[in-house]
Amino acid sequence: MRPTLDFLLHDWLRVGDLSQRPRFAEHSRETFDAVLDTCERIARDRYAPFNRLVDTEEPRIGADGRVVLPQATHDAWLAYVGSGLLAAAQSEDWGGMNLPYTVEAAANAFFSKASASISAALLTVGNANLLLAHGTPRQKEVFARAEFEGRWAGTMCLSEPQAGSSLSDIATRAVLDDEGDPLGPRYRLTGSEMWISGGEHEITENIVHLVLAKIVQPDGRLLPGTRGISLFVVPKMRVDAQGRLTGERNDVALAGLNHKCGWRGTTNTLLAFGERGGAVGYLVGRPGEGLKCMFHMMNEARIGIGMCAAMLAMAGYEASLAYAKQRTQGRPITGAGKDASQPPVAIIEHADVKRMLLAQKATAEGALALLLYCARLVDEQHTGEGASAREAALLLEVLTPVAKSWPSENGLEANSLAIQVLGGYGYTRDFPVEQYWRDQRLNMIHEGTHGIQALDLLGRKVTMDGGAGLKLLAGRINATIERAGHDRDWALQAHALASSLQSLGVATKAAWATGVPDEALANATPYLQAFGHVVVAWIWLDVALATRRADAAAACGRRAAARYFFAYELPKVGAWLAVVSAREPVCRQMKQDWF
Amino acid sequence: MRPTLDFLLHDWLRVGDLSQRPRFAEHSRETFDAVLDTCERIARDRYAPFNRLVDTEEPRIGADGRVVLPQATHDAWLAYVGSGLLAAAQSEDWGGMNLPYTVEAAANAFFSKASASISAALLTVGNANLLLAHGTPRQKEVFARAEFEGRWAGTMCLSEPQAGSSLSDIATRAVLDDEGDPLGPRYRLTGSEMWISGGEHEITENIVHLVLAKIVQPDGRLLPGTRGISLFVVPKMRVDAQGRLTGERNDVALAGLNHKCGWRGTTNTLLAFGERGGAVGYLVGRPGEGLKCMFHMMNEARIGIGMCAAMLAMAGYEASLAYAKQRTQGRPITGAGKDASQPPVAIIEHADVKRMLLAQKATAEGALALLLYCARLVDEQHTGEGASAREAALLLEVLTPVAKSWPSENGLEANSLAIQVLGGYGYTRDFPVEQYWRDQRLNMIHEGTHGIQALDLLGRKVTMDGGAGLKLLAGRINATIERAGHDRDWALQAHALASSLQSLGVATKAAWATGVPDEALANATPYLQAFGHVVVAWIWLDVALATRRADAAAACGRRAAARYFFAYELPKVGAWLAVVSAREPVCRQMKQDWF
Repeated sequence: MRPTLDFLLHDWLRVGDLSQRPRFAEHSRETFDAVLDTCERIARDRYAPFNRLVDTEEPRIGADGRVVLPQATHDAWLAYVGSGLLAAAQSEDWGGMNLPYTVEAAANAFFSKASASISAALLTVGNANLLLAHGTPRQKEVFARAEFEGRWAGTMCLSEPQAGSSLSDIATRAVLDDEGDPLGPRYRLTGSEMWISGGEHEITENIVHLVLAKIVQPDGRLLPGTRGISLFVVPKMRVDAQGRLTGERNDVALAGLNHKCGWRGTTNTLLAFGERGGAVGYLVGRPGEGLKCMFHMMNEARIGIGMCAAMLAMAGYEASLAYAKQRTQGRPITGAGKDASQPPVAIIEHADVKRMLLAQKATAEGALALLLYCARLVDEQHTGEGASAREAALLLEVLTPVAKSWPSENGLEANSLAIQVLGGYGYTRDFPVEQYWRDQRLNMIHEGTHGIQALDLLGRKVTMDGGAGLKLLAGRINATIERAGHDRDWALQAHALASSLQSLGVATKAAWATGVPDEALANATPYLQAFGHVVVAWIWLDVALATRRADAAAACGRRAAARYFFAYELPKVGAWLAVVSAREPVCRQMKQDWF
Repeated sequence: MRPTLDFLLHDWLRVGDLSQRPRFAEHSRETFDAVLDTCERIARDRYAPFNRLVDTEEPRIGADGRVVLPQATHDAWLAYVGSGLLAAAQSEDWGGMNLPYTVEAAANAFFSKASASISAALLTVGNANLLLAHGTPRQKEVFARAEFEGRWAGTMCLSEPQAGSSLSDIATRAVLDDEGDPLGPRYRLTGSEMWISGGEHEITENIVHLVLAKIVQPDGRLLPGTRGISLFVVPKMRVDAQGRLTGERNDVALAGLNHKCGWRGTTNTLLAFGERGGAVGYLVGRPGEGLKCMFHMMNEARIGIGMCAAMLAMAGYEASLAYAKQRTQGRPITGAGKDASQPPVAIIEHADVKRMLLAQKATAEGALALLLYCARLVDEQHTGEGASAREAALLLEVLTPVAKSWPSENGLEANSLAIQVLGGYGYTRDFPVEQYWRDQRLNMIHEGTHGIQALDLLGRKVTMDGGAGLKLLAGRINATIERAGHDRDWALQAHALASSLQSLGVATKAAWATGVPDEALANATPYLQAFGHVVVAWIWLDVALATRRADAAAACGRRAAARYFFAYELPKVGAWLAVVSAREPVCRQMKQDWF
């Protein structure tokens, strides 16, 4: 993967240019490479060898009531902390090195590829980043600093067992305890939080929960809907104003561990807040603005999930490619029939195996390119010139649901193909590909399900500001089409992409033609699928152009993957958009008793 | 599922008419119903409750070297034997009741749905059926009878560790021992057999292995290719000429258990033949005709896999449907926005959840209908008039790769949607859907991988006899189109199917236009996908017509599923066929070092 990463970062995205900006002035390609080298090595040595182990030795509750994890998980965390990556994107004040987010994302990719479920450090960084954006100076000093230093870990607590994705139904209650606490207005929280990754463990001496809850009104009631939601920082172990552990456990109890199909290296918990009178929590940001604050973290988390999905696809691709090169079986298909007296060939010689590998390459590398493009937009948003920064922010709004969902859905198919390349062996636990496939299945669910990404895209992102985000994206895509249209090797693909982009625009309008949300949104998921394919086709075309007709094997491979995507994948867009444009009613009109 | 089964068997396929044929004269709808009632009950009581147990308590090798299985697996076998289904399709001579294969297949479906991996009895029946077709009278009496009575179980041994699907590379050797053994020409076999389901267990007192091997030639060599392959019956425990156990174990040893991603209720083994001088095996059929004999069993097995895949899809559909009806979350999308003061609705009210359920219904019931149609063809082949029987045989040749592959691939997507309906809960092992999904993943691999089905279809089945099979199938499809074209409710769908069928014919010709096999077959898998969708669209259209505009909920549901399939699925055919028609070369031209 490293050559692919280097190509995308430097030849395609030109991240070296970022060092011309004041924030990144101390950097150069050499410092970027050094970070990648370190992370690649740690991931290879301290994560990958233990990926099967954490699948087998699932988290369990020990005799003393504590969560028991394999030693390898503890060691991996320490190695990750040692890499300096937790704070790398921060300034020196926070122990960081002003690393561009693009490079940080690339560096983290190695860990996701080595072991998706061990590398759950992303939540800690996202948690600390949220506190930097919305917390008080002392909250930053106490909680965020401990997280950046790797002394404490972080979680996000949004889902409740009865509410799931429906955040307006949050029932966790917060009662004011002391307005004047140095750590922020202090509340007592009572409620249940479900699906909390890293919700309980002994890896760090404390855990920083960021919890959504509703402040109890003077009349004793909770405000309905999302406007009543506020955000609280709730430490597992109580701390004093200087951030020292008091030795007292906060009223946050482990109510259960979830036993999952995959992703078993990450503890996933049901937490009970306030069983003994109320968990101490400090208000972050203003009352009623909890969702807004949390989405600061959520958008980062969604890009992180997309990258994780891309990396699971990459891991399956690499494993099945290695197998296909060494496993011999069968003979090439020729007009003369099989000559059984000849020795069998490596299965990579068979066209259908090449097809399965090329499909995986197109998915994994296409998704990686998309995620790096989004990461580069994050840097632009934070350090670009005015208009450029605003455009980056707008593009990110539109692309985030795609960046999360496309790699998750298509990466699952890629991981399934990795199993298929290995045949029966791929279905055994002696090879890693079945685990990648099981791990991947979570990515369409957590941090906003596939259906919710679809509603976000068609219901909000492409319509907001009169469709400004979609127009901006179309402009970028058209710029690539324009360049490709003048290149005899890519003119056909440019034309196909232009046609699909036009269909996408037509479908967007047609979906909303009646202005009735349930008619428009009944086919939001096929819309999301089509949108994602158009975006990834654009990314591949742009990447192909960046190979500049070089005849090195890697360049030929990238162009072949791009051609594969245009020949085999992009044509599917028509089928998805047909139901969107027709506002096909068969699903929404289906009655319960007809099933 | 039972109402669906009843509708398909009686209203659609009219299996009751079979009782007009001499072989089935003793039967009526009442006797068919009684068989289904019994099997439905046994599957519900003795299989379904233990499906998770067999996933957790994987087969293991005990201290005494024997394979240990949960007691529930033993009990389920006895209950299955008690149902009489092992021999049901046979005549009274074999303890059977002359049951049509269609009804036998429907009855077996209950077991697959209740627990795919416990219900591995199909191999035993297939094994015995093969012996009835190709064995000597004494081989039938000794081996087949014991299998039909459930005293012994059967396996099929084709795959060797080094050869996999490449049967021409079979290396198991057979040396003549005694030409005149009453059980058939006796040989000594030496070799390894991989992926042998039911290869070792203590459920029955003996196991009947059907093994492919090459007879050592006078010069000590093996004939290359498939023409050197012969078939042998190799019992685990030695037997005398009357079929009594001699107490001596044959030279067949358990070399290892495979630890799989799913399907854990079925023991899957690596077997070593002839480590102590040679396993005793008796020739079945003529030397060199082993493959031909084995394919008698293989075609039945492929239809069995297709039915199993359909039933896993059905199991996921039923589980997610039940969940969607009782789980409340969120509110309907309306123009007025969400009213959080209203109570949440059952998630089956959401259009995207309906979409995921309807997709599963279209897949599971469509696949079931396809498999029953194929089963009905088997009955026609065996008991129909001359021309009708020949047509049925020809149609079965073309449809078998589709019947095996379509439910396996599309059932996997259906099972993934079942997880998605349950969200995070679906990803936990507290609910059954993640296991259905893992179990389903095997179906694209065993009994001939997806890629092999594709080569069989495009490389052999649609070209044989000058395309006679494809022409016959097209005729059947056109007959349905003709009827639907005159029905105002289905005229559009009839037109769409006619158009897709025409594209399929064009693509078939275009693939072979150059007559170069590697050009034609490089896109055999997309061809298989498109072919399957056209066939299932035809099946759905035919089923929809059979609802006769009834306004009962079930009839409305069937028509909605048919409409769903035409709106959301059939249009995908175009994308798949485009690469076939273009003989798209990007995969086969991909070079190893470009990856």
